[in-house]
Amino acid sequence: MSDFYHHSKERTHGELDRQLDRSFTLAGFSAKQRLALSCRYLADEGHAKTLAGQVTLRADTPGTFWTTHFGSGFADVCVSNLVRVDADMNVIEGEGMANPAVRFHLWIYRARPDVNSIVHTHAVHSAALSMTRARLLVAHMDTTVFHEDCAYLEDWPGVPVANEEGRLITEALGSARSILLSNHGLLTVGSSIDEAVYLAGLFEHAARLHLLACATGAQIATLSAPRAQEAHDFLLKPKMISQTVDYWLRQAARRHPDALR
Amino acid sequence: MSDFYHHSKERTHGELDRQLDRSFTLAGFSAKQRLALSCRYLADEGHAKTLAGQVTLRADTPGTFWTTHFGSGFADVCVSNLVRVDADMNVIEGEGMANPAVRFHLWIYRARPDVNSIVHTHAVHSAALSMTRARLLVAHMDTTVFHEDCAYLEDWPGVPVANEEGRLITEALGSARSILLSNHGLLTVGSSIDEAVYLAGLFEHAARLHLLACATGAQIATLSAPRAQEAHDFLLKPKMISQTVDYWLRQAARRHPDALR
Amino acid sequence: MSDFYHHSKERTHGELDRQLDRSFTLAGFSAKQRLALSCRYLADEGHAKTLAGQVTLRADTPGTFWTTHFGSGFADVCVSNLVRVDADMNVIEGEGMANPAVRFHLWIYRARPDVNSIVHTHAVHSAALSMTRARLLVAHMDTTVFHEDCAYLEDWPGVPVANEEGRLITEALGSARSILLSNHGLLTVGSSIDEAVYLAGLFEHAARLHLLACATGAQIATLSAPRAQEAHDFLLKPKMISQTVDYWLRQAARRHPDALR
Amino acid sequence: MSDFYHHSKERTHGELDRQLDRSFTLAGFSAKQRLALSCRYLADEGHAKTLAGQVTLRADTPGTFWTTHFGSGFADVCVSNLVRVDADMNVIEGEGMANPAVRFHLWIYRARPDVNSIVHTHAVHSAALSMTRARLLVAHMDTTVFHEDCAYLEDWPGVPVANEEGRLITEALGSARSILLSNHGLLTVGSSIDEAVYLAGLFEHAARLHLLACATGAQIATLSAPRAQEAHDFLLKPKMISQTVDYWLRQAARRHPDALR
Repeated sequence: MSDFYHHSKERTHGELDRQLDRSFTLAGFSAKQRLALSCRYLADEGHAKTLAGQVTLRADTPGTFWTTHFGSGFADVCVSNLVRVDADMNVIEGEGMANPAVRFHLWIYRARPDVNSIVHTHAVHSAALSMTRARLLVAHMDTTVFHEDCAYLEDWPGVPVANEEGRLITEALGSARSILLSNHGLLTVGSSIDEAVYLAGLFEHAARLHLLACATGAQIATLSAPRAQEAHDFLLKPKMISQTVDYWLRQAARRHPDALR
Repeated sequence: MSDFYHHSKERTHGELDRQLDRSFTLAGFSAKQRLALSCRYLADEGHAKTLAGQVTLRADTPGTFWTTHFGSGFADVCVSNLVRVDADMNVIEGEGMANPAVRFHLWIYRARPDVNSIVHTHAVHSAALSMTRARLLVAHMDTTVFHEDCAYLEDWPGVPVANEEGRLITEALGSARSILLSNHGLLTVGSSIDEAVYLAGLFEHAARLHLLACATGAQIATLSAPRAQEAHDFLLKPKMISQTVDYWLRQAARRHPDALR
Repeated sequence: MSDFYHHSKERTHGELDRQLDRSFTLAGFSAKQRLALSCRYLADEGHAKTLAGQVTLRADTPGTFWTTHFGSGFADVCVSNLVRVDADMNVIEGEGMANPAVRFHLWIYRARPDVNSIVHTHAVHSAALSMTRARLLVAHMDTTVFHEDCAYLEDWPGVPVANEEGRLITEALGSARSILLSNHGLLTVGSSIDEAVYLAGLFEHAARLHLLACATGAQIATLSAPRAQEAHDFLLKPKMISQTVDYWLRQAARRHPDALR
Repeated sequence: MSDFYHHSKERTHGELDRQLDRSFTLAGFSAKQRLALSCRYLADEGHAKTLAGQVTLRADTPGTFWTTHFGSGFADVCVSNLVRVDADMNVIEGEGMANPAVRFHLWIYRARPDVNSIVHTHAVHSAALSMTRARLLVAHMDTTVFHEDCAYLEDWPGVPVANEEGRLITEALGSARSILLSNHGLLTVGSSIDEAVYLAGLFEHAARLHLLACATGAQIATLSAPRAQEAHDFLLKPKMISQTVDYWLRQAARRHPDALR
């Protein structure tokens, strides 16, 4: 009998890491293409029923950020209508004005040098969850990316276009990768656009699972904390992130080739 | 450090208003195109599973109204099959008869000179909500357009093609912008077609969020009334309305170019 | 002021009837086209996740019936793959065998000479509802077609391909236009294919509304019986039926032109 | 009167079996085409929001298995990007590496020589159900394929890429055709790829019905065990399976012709 079935967990995980490093090729979209396609993917998943929501990304020139222009919803975004703004929200490149809510992104970038990209949306299930006093339920393997890594802003500070909201959200986020904003929606951050988009996609998925499971009234099957932490770390390996986001962006590119314009 | 992060709320809101005035360009659809595309957008969002529902709009000639003809559902509407009726529902322009339920629109126009457009639908989630004794729950930022601005008709007067129903609905609506009609659906009014369509789209969205949040059985996170009022007023600025509706109509035009025929 | 706003209910309803008679033109599909397009419409609405479900229609030759052949799901049906069977389920015209479950349709046709068409499906929300002990909730205007007109088969007789099931379903249906089959699905009958399809579409819609409303746990807003009866009769006027089904079939024809092959 | 309406249940079932044998023709897709199209069908049904999930199939060469390569989600799969691996997960044919989670498939194949194909997914409703302590509810005819034939793994062993998880899942599965994996998803096995895919499709359907029915809070209408067993056996006849899967794959082939590349 093959030795294969006696390999230890450490060995199988080690092999996996080496294989991931070796065999994986990215889809080859540029940063701006990834930004545009991410918006389209998120629109298809119900993140952009209205114009609320923004994706931002630190640009190569320090202190500047790529984002969509105000008036373009996620379903409209293409490479050619992105704008680059400075830390005071002046448009440096591209046409139109930035979404005023980008202001609270800037607060987060100031406080979190590790963050290179932010996604904020009012995705349907996340919005519904935000209307309750429940924290995001982490009881499925795929949602362990939020295990001890999802903050909560209990207070709704109003329409978030002022500095006060930037301060509140930044403080509540702390060092976490994501936050559930009460009466509002989701916000995720990442060291790359892929990480922020990955977490935004999974956040809405987690919120949907949360609503479906809780609606039955059945007892919830909680996760053991150490296993949840292990899964959290596994699912946040950079290659796991890029691979999943590539899968999403390939689908968006097939459905919306005009996003690459 | 930039002064930007110390601007007061008043200042950031003021800047936003000035920027909105300056930088925003409408998609350029005509009033009849907006009417046709709105119907298609609403059909895609589940407002038109049957032939129930109407959109009406005051025409340039006083005392006349554009609407869809009876037998065309929202998914069928195009510019060339709209009809213009007078205040007695006689068809003045276009072919076919108006939907008999337009009668209660006429009652509202009589009582509300500020109203230039009305949307009434049996959208799925609004219809489900109307089967319960609950009022529309306003616990999400995007639904604050209904804060103290959504009436309730507790009595179902039967199939609404007679004058009695027009009187009842008009009285219950009062001076509000929207009303939840028990055992029936939603109705929204606006000073423009954009406003009525915007509210109809958000109403169904609000009803969906309401159903999702309440199904969990969790405690609801209520909004502070002053902030809800502030958000209500912000989200109902004419430019916020037009911008969102433009986003919706652009999507409808891409999916249903025949609506512009 | 126009006299229009003082017309009595009797008068407005009378005018409506006269206008319906005058102004309405059918889409002009043949009976077999209506059968094929109905299957496609129902498939799009979630009635045909598996091969379960059948639509049948009395053919011009007495004692024979049009239906889909076994192995074609609703999503596959086109005019050219319909079969005509006799009252013993022998195929008289077309290729292949009839779905064995057509046997219980034949039982209904024997007992109900007023019935010319039957639809039976396991539509998603109707199937979910059939797993509970609840009767179909009639608390919305659009679902009053089921007011005192929806029977219930409490017992699940097993896979319905034998005569026993035909007898049970026929007895439980009695003189009603529709029945909720426990642990199973929906069945509707009509004097025309349009009526049976109309009721099947509305049944699934009613089941969805039922599930959504009840999941909130809120009190249900019941209908007054006389108004529900009045709406039932209004919504079942032949022109109201044909007009709605035409709307559905036009949509199906646009999405699935191959159904007309 | 025709004798037809007096045929016994045994006779009608016997006739059905003979007719099935005679009149049914498969769609004619090859094994690899069935594998690729099954992935696309499952993706369309919400089984593949992320890269989690695998379909495997014993290849003609003993001890080797066809599967998708790591990095391709179900929505990407086509005939030309399948890989064949040996029992140690070495790639024998095709490019790239296998999904590391295929390891627990190999454990099942070792323990179950009757199994020739396995499907594992994190389909949305199955995932939500797996977050509760409920077993899959079998209260609808179409879901009787799971009657006394759906195991349950109460313990979530963490991200399933190690041998420990293979051992646990295999033991919990026992001799059943399917298993609900707590905090995780569904797994189905079959003597053919059609059987495994059929059960996976029906599992997610059953989970959706379960969630919808339970959310109402109404009493569940349970099935009599003997009838459920009879329906289980009927619905698992090889021709019933192939016919349904053919229906699904034809739909996938129409929507995604590139899967056959």
